[in-house]
Amino acid sequence: MSNKNTPPLNIGVVGLGRAFTLMLPTFVHDSRVRLVAATDPIAAAQAQFGKDFSAPTHDSVEALCANPDVEAVYIASPHQFHAEHVCLAAAHGKHVLVEKPMALSLDECSRMIEAARSAGVHLIVGHSHSFNTPIKRTRQIIDSGTYGAVKMITALNFTDFLYRPRRPEELDTQAGGGVIHSQATHQIDIVRLLGGGLVRSVQAHTGAWDSARPTEGAYSALLGFESGAFASATYSGYGHYDSDELMGNIGEMGQAKNPQDYGAARKRLVNAASAEEESRLKAARNYGGSLYTGTPSLPAGLAHQHFGNIIVSCEKADLRPTPSGIEIYGDGQRSFEPLPPPAVPRSEVIDELYGAVFEGRDPLHSGAWARATTEVCLAILEAARSGSAQPMRHQVALGST
Amino acid sequence: MSNKNTPPLNIGVVGLGRAFTLMLPTFVHDSRVRLVAATDPIAAAQAQFGKDFSAPTHDSVEALCANPDVEAVYIASPHQFHAEHVCLAAAHGKHVLVEKPMALSLDECSRMIEAARSAGVHLIVGHSHSFNTPIKRTRQIIDSGTYGAVKMITALNFTDFLYRPRRPEELDTQAGGGVIHSQATHQIDIVRLLGGGLVRSVQAHTGAWDSARPTEGAYSALLGFESGAFASATYSGYGHYDSDELMGNIGEMGQAKNPQDYGAARKRLVNAASAEEESRLKAARNYGGSLYTGTPSLPAGLAHQHFGNIIVSCEKADLRPTPSGIEIYGDGQRSFEPLPPPAVPRSEVIDELYGAVFEGRDPLHSGAWARATTEVCLAILEAARSGSAQPMRHQVALGST
Repeated sequence: MSNKNTPPLNIGVVGLGRAFTLMLPTFVHDSRVRLVAATDPIAAAQAQFGKDFSAPTHDSVEALCANPDVEAVYIASPHQFHAEHVCLAAAHGKHVLVEKPMALSLDECSRMIEAARSAGVHLIVGHSHSFNTPIKRTRQIIDSGTYGAVKMITALNFTDFLYRPRRPEELDTQAGGGVIHSQATHQIDIVRLLGGGLVRSVQAHTGAWDSARPTEGAYSALLGFESGAFASATYSGYGHYDSDELMGNIGEMGQAKNPQDYGAARKRLVNAASAEEESRLKAARNYGGSLYTGTPSLPAGLAHQHFGNIIVSCEKADLRPTPSGIEIYGDGQRSFEPLPPPAVPRSEVIDELYGAVFEGRDPLHSGAWARATTEVCLAILEAARSGSAQPMRHQVALGST
Repeated sequence: MSNKNTPPLNIGVVGLGRAFTLMLPTFVHDSRVRLVAATDPIAAAQAQFGKDFSAPTHDSVEALCANPDVEAVYIASPHQFHAEHVCLAAAHGKHVLVEKPMALSLDECSRMIEAARSAGVHLIVGHSHSFNTPIKRTRQIIDSGTYGAVKMITALNFTDFLYRPRRPEELDTQAGGGVIHSQATHQIDIVRLLGGGLVRSVQAHTGAWDSARPTEGAYSALLGFESGAFASATYSGYGHYDSDELMGNIGEMGQAKNPQDYGAARKRLVNAASAEEESRLKAARNYGGSLYTGTPSLPAGLAHQHFGNIIVSCEKADLRPTPSGIEIYGDGQRSFEPLPPPAVPRSEVIDELYGAVFEGRDPLHSGAWARATTEVCLAILEAARSGSAQPMRHQVALGST
C-alpha cells in the first residue's frame, strides 16, 4: 500500500494501552507507517515495545515529541490527557493522530485545533468507526444522488462495554469515563458523516443503572440536522442483548463471534473482586502485560469493523452498511453491494494520515470535524440533564476543513 | 373459550372497512362474541354482512345503536368519526369497543370517556398491538421483579404502511391520516404498557418525504417516563427496509412472510394511477368488495401478532418479545420463554371486552389509558413542529382506571 516514492511515516506512540493494542495490527501491517518510538508509564509496556520494534522508549511525552526521528505522534493516552499531549506534539512540529474522544471539553478541542494550526501540522482524530469502509461507501452511495436525500438515520448498538475491565476513572464521567465519551463518539461520528455533518439540535436521555459502575452505560439521542433530516442513536453497554446478531454475528473488530460466548465479559469480571483487581486485570491484558499474547499476526477472515446497526433512510432507498457490504432496500427491489474484505484493519486511518502528510489531501477526521462530534456528545449529557434540546455552535459540514 | 354460564356478547358493527376485516377472524372464531348487526355506507359491504351472518344491517349508526339485540358496539368507522359514534353508542346504553386511534384530539377523547362514564358502559380502545400476548407476557415478567426495574425501551418498526392502498383522507394528517395517528398508536401503546404508563415528556422528529403522499411516513420519538426510564420509538412506513426480518420473517398479523415479496405494496400501487383508482382498489379489497376473498377460515401456523422489534432494558436483563415467545438476555445467560401459538388471533381484545362486561374486570385499554396514548401521539406531532419537549397532562399508570 505504500507509495514507492515516499518513505513510510515515522510514528511515535504516546500510551501503550488498550487503544494502542487495537491499532497495533494496522501499524504493524500497513507499510506506509513505521513505529519508531514510544512512551508509557508502565515499564512492562515499554519493554514489550522495545522488544517488538527495536526502537527507543522515552520517559516522558516531551522527550518522545523531541525525538527527531518522530514525524507524527499517535496519542492514545487516557482521555483527560489528550489536549495536553496534542499541544505538546504540535509545539514540537509533529503531526498528530489522537484517539477518540478528542477531548473532554470544547475548550480543549479548540486549543488542540489552534495548536495544530499555528504549528502548521496535521491533526487527525481517530480511529473511530466512521473511518470504516462500509460507512464511507454508504456515504459515496448517498453522494451519487441515486437514492435522493438522506431523511432519517437509525443507529443502534448493544454491547458489553460497561463490563470490560476498567480503571476507576473509566467509570467516572467527569474523568472521561462512560459510554458518552467512549462510545457515542463512534456512533455520533458515523451519524454525522452519513447525515452530512451539520447537526442543529440534540435531545437525549442517558441511563446509569448499575450502581457498582456509576457512569452512563446507555443513552438514546435524537439529532436534528440543518437539512431537516433527523437521526436516532441508541446505545447500551450493559452486556445483555447483543446487537452483533444484526451484523451476522460479526463483532466490532470484524471478527466472527460465537453466540455461545454470551455473557463472557461479566463472567471475566466476577473474579475481579475490587477496583484494584479490575485495574490489574485490565493492565494484565494490555500490551506487555502478563496476559498479553504478543503482537498479533493478521487474523484470517476478518470482515470490516462496525459499530452496530445503521439504517440510512433516503428518499428512494434505505441503506444499511454491514461488515461485508451495503444492503440497499430500494423502491422496487432489494440488492446487496459486496465490499472486498479489508487487507489491513483500520488502514482507512493511515489513508487519511498518510494522505494529509504526503499527498496534500485534507483529512475528513480533522480537529474541526471531531470537535463537532465532541459537541454533540457533550450535548447528549447536557440534554439528558436539562431535558431540553441543545443548540449547536461548532458544527462543520462534511468535506469542509 | 366462552363461559358456560354466560351467553356470547352480541356485537353490532359500525364500519365494515379494513379495520373490521382485520378483526373479523376474531369475531368469527371467538365463541364469546357474536355479530348481530352492522352498518356501513357501502351497499356491497352490507350485503356481504347480511349473507355471512344472517343478521340485519342498518342505514345509520343511530339505528344500529337503537337495535335492542346489540349489547356492545364495535366502532371501526374512519378515525374522524370515532368520537361521534362512541358518544352515540354510549347514549344508547351500549358498551363500546372502538378502534385505535381513539380520536384525533384530546377533547374528543375526554368527551368519549365522559359519555361512557355517565352512561355506565364500558369503553375499550383497540385492537392495538399492545394487546398482543408477547407484550403482555413481557409486562408480567417485568412485574415479577426478577430482572429489576425497566430503564430503557427501544422500539423500531419499518413497514410499507404508506404504500398500502389509501383513501385521500388517509394521506391527510388533519383528517387523521399518516403514521402518527395510525401507527404510533400501536408503538406508543406498547411502549407505555412496558414502561408503566406515565410518560413525562415527549421529544420527536417526523418525516414526510414523498410529495405524492404528503403526510408523515416516519418518525423518531424520545419518551421520558416519570420513573426516570426512557424510550426511543422509531417508525418508517416508506416500504424500504422491512424490520419483519428481525422478527423471524413473521409479519404484523402473525403470518409467515416470503422475503421474495419485497416491494409488493409499491408494485400494487403502480396500477392505481389516480387517487380515485387507489380508493377503488382499497374498496375492492375490503369486505364485500370485488376482490374480497370471503370470510377467512383460521390460517394454520399463525404466530403471535407484533409491531416490530422491542427491546426492554431492565436492570438485570434485556427482554425482547417475539411472535413465538420472549427472549431474555440476562446477566449470565440468554434464554427463551416460548409462548403457545394463538388459538384465535386477537382474542386478547375479547378477553378485555368480555371480562369487563360479564366478569367485572377493569379493562387495561380503557378510555383513560387510550387518551394518554393519544396525548403522546399528538405530542409527537407538536414536538416535531416546535422542536421542544412536550409535557404531558393526561397520563395514567398501568392498572389504574
